[in-house]
Amino acid sequence: MSDPHIVSVGLSPIGSTDLTGRDLFTAAMTEAFDGVPDPAEIVDAVYVGNQSERYEHQILYGTILAEWCGLRFTPAERVEACAAAGALALRHAVRDVRTGTHDAVLACGIEKMTAGGSALATESLSAAFDRPLEQRSGVTAPSQYALLAQRYLHETDATEADLARIAVKNHENAAANPRAHFGEEIDVETVLGSEYVARPLKLFDCAPISDGAAAVLVASEEVASAVGSRATSVRVAGSGAATNNIGVADRNLTVIEGAHVATERAYDGAGIDPEDVDVAEVHDAFTISEALLAEAAGFAPRGRGFESSRPPAERSDGWTNVRLSTSGGLKARGHPIGATGLAQAVEAYEQLTGRAGDRQVPGADTALLINEGGVADAATVAHVLTVGGT
Amino acid sequence: MSDPHIVSVGLSPIGSTDLTGRDLFTAAMTEAFDGVPDPAEIVDAVYVGNQSERYEHQILYGTILAEWCGLRFTPAERVEACAAAGALALRHAVRDVRTGTHDAVLACGIEKMTAGGSALATESLSAAFDRPLEQRSGVTAPSQYALLAQRYLHETDATEADLARIAVKNHENAAANPRAHFGEEIDVETVLGSEYVARPLKLFDCAPISDGAAAVLVASEEVASAVGSRATSVRVAGSGAATNNIGVADRNLTVIEGAHVATERAYDGAGIDPEDVDVAEVHDAFTISEALLAEAAGFAPRGRGFESSRPPAERSDGWTNVRLSTSGGLKARGHPIGATGLAQAVEAYEQLTGRAGDRQVPGADTALLINEGGVADAATVAHVLTVGGT
Repeated sequence: MSDPHIVSVGLSPIGSTDLTGRDLFTAAMTEAFDGVPDPAEIVDAVYVGNQSERYEHQILYGTILAEWCGLRFTPAERVEACAAAGALALRHAVRDVRTGTHDAVLACGIEKMTAGGSALATESLSAAFDRPLEQRSGVTAPSQYALLAQRYLHETDATEADLARIAVKNHENAAANPRAHFGEEIDVETVLGSEYVARPLKLFDCAPISDGAAAVLVASEEVASAVGSRATSVRVAGSGAATNNIGVADRNLTVIEGAHVATERAYDGAGIDPEDVDVAEVHDAFTISEALLAEAAGFAPRGRGFESSRPPAERSDGWTNVRLSTSGGLKARGHPIGATGLAQAVEAYEQLTGRAGDRQVPGADTALLINEGGVADAATVAHVLTVGGT
Repeated sequence: MSDPHIVSVGLSPIGSTDLTGRDLFTAAMTEAFDGVPDPAEIVDAVYVGNQSERYEHQILYGTILAEWCGLRFTPAERVEACAAAGALALRHAVRDVRTGTHDAVLACGIEKMTAGGSALATESLSAAFDRPLEQRSGVTAPSQYALLAQRYLHETDATEADLARIAVKNHENAAANPRAHFGEEIDVETVLGSEYVARPLKLFDCAPISDGAAAVLVASEEVASAVGSRATSVRVAGSGAATNNIGVADRNLTVIEGAHVATERAYDGAGIDPEDVDVAEVHDAFTISEALLAEAAGFAPRGRGFESSRPPAERSDGWTNVRLSTSGGLKARGHPIGATGLAQAVEAYEQLTGRAGDRQVPGADTALLINEGGVADAATVAHVLTVGGT
């Protein structure tokens, strides 16, 4: 048994690119392996998060990436729970190291979403909805999340402008992130004036369709030490996962219970409370998601998660001081499905090691990641990362 | 840390059916949970092997099956390495129990291959080939395996009739398996007289396109005891996995090195040698596969694996007494891709617990399973199962 550490990370540019999935991965892997002596010598297993074979007509991505890294005969596989695939890969790497199964494991994620335009992406993502009950009604991701948003606006004091402010905040963060999909700040009027996709969600309430790849090397403390990165490595202190009913109609629309369960499991593993978290990357596929997940994670009182865009001092009583989606989040950093959970880990690694540049939250030493698959919490994987102490 | 035991198994009918994937799974789950008190109370996690979202336009199968079993909030996910997906699910379950991560885990596999006819199955399986180098040349699974077979017939004394005898033996075994895809025996003339699919492989050298689902409940000795099945439970003594280069052109065609590595890892874990194995389910997607895997597993001397259809006494020196593909194998029991690795485990469970009916190999107490993904050993997962002893 060994504490799992993230010893190095890599992230491709995120956005609409001409690169193939493997080219995107090359960018991430090259960065992750930079300064790691003999990666092929130390990596014992590979997990790849990838949502859909449709974009590139390619399965067996575990095998392909192991070979691409020069890791012949290394166990490698793909894991999938729609957009939670990336964090699943991380979770496997963390467990393998924690249990002593392996000393160093590469978790990576890839999605080449723009290969067939938005029509293919919409079609492909619809496979995450229950086929007999949901798909046949022609629902899309925005139309399902719009149900959550409608109900939330009905139950709480939140307005469409409040949701818009979440988008504005995340675009502002992304503008300080050189690898974000969107590099320009926006204002509330831009969001409110954009077209409705599924009322009350407008174009600027929605995360984009992005290409991207991410790689995270997880290792035991001994290996972390040996590769010389121990001083800057981040400990994965807790990991939690949970599913919820596949159908939105079979869930509470405004209390994201599965995400709450997964997050509690991660907190319990780490022995921390929500108040201890300095920065959090939550699964803001839509602005409403950030509001709901701030509550599910215990950062905000019920019905006040929509204040996530405000500076801590201006939030309601009961809110913690956490900063959300410092990377720009799915909303503006971008959302390359299978890579998203690992892109979250890259941001946390950079924040906790003081490398987040203009996005840096001073003194951040504990991060929470929430990565979801399907509509909201059909599948959720949460992680707690820390530096110092232990 | 606890020895992982298979405490119960379930298998749907295998073949061309009108059932959906979920209906097939219901058949497998109902059998696996029969006699298990409160499965929802004891199952801590679910892994689902599934090759393609194309057949049913459905991803997130982990979430769906967890809900289908009444396991709300239980961690669940899909794993994929093409046709090795089922054994990957088993491998995760085994590791979770062995490491003490969970006490009981459900490993299951589903494939609804006939949903779009053989055209969709061929198209879908082609995603397992390297896109830039292999797919663009229009290869299919039979055409790639034919390269292995051509070379094997060139290098060894084997003939097309020898390969045909493997098919005959596996159909004979399937005829004694009530859930096999094919229930009728065939003769060598049937195989040799069937159409060439890709020379030298003929129609009857090839496994069929099958629907099917399988479920295997893996638990600690304590849970096995508690559910009353300890007396008949089977211990998973070893598990090994390996990848090999994705492209057939980048591998040895007649020495299946990745499968050899994975199998050695499973033997090492179990502390056994090939001679100790009584029954083996190998990944006979084509007759040539059984010959090659008999050699990779150390059952046969190099170049003599084609004798797998013969009774042990009539095989060349250096062969062990193992019986191969007693279920009928992929060739005749059927090959529902994501479920195949677990269907292999079901056969081993039945053989080792004396429930294999007319297929029973007397005194069998050790089994080897080899499940492959892609062409031959692009991904291999091997397991050793035992009863008695420790």
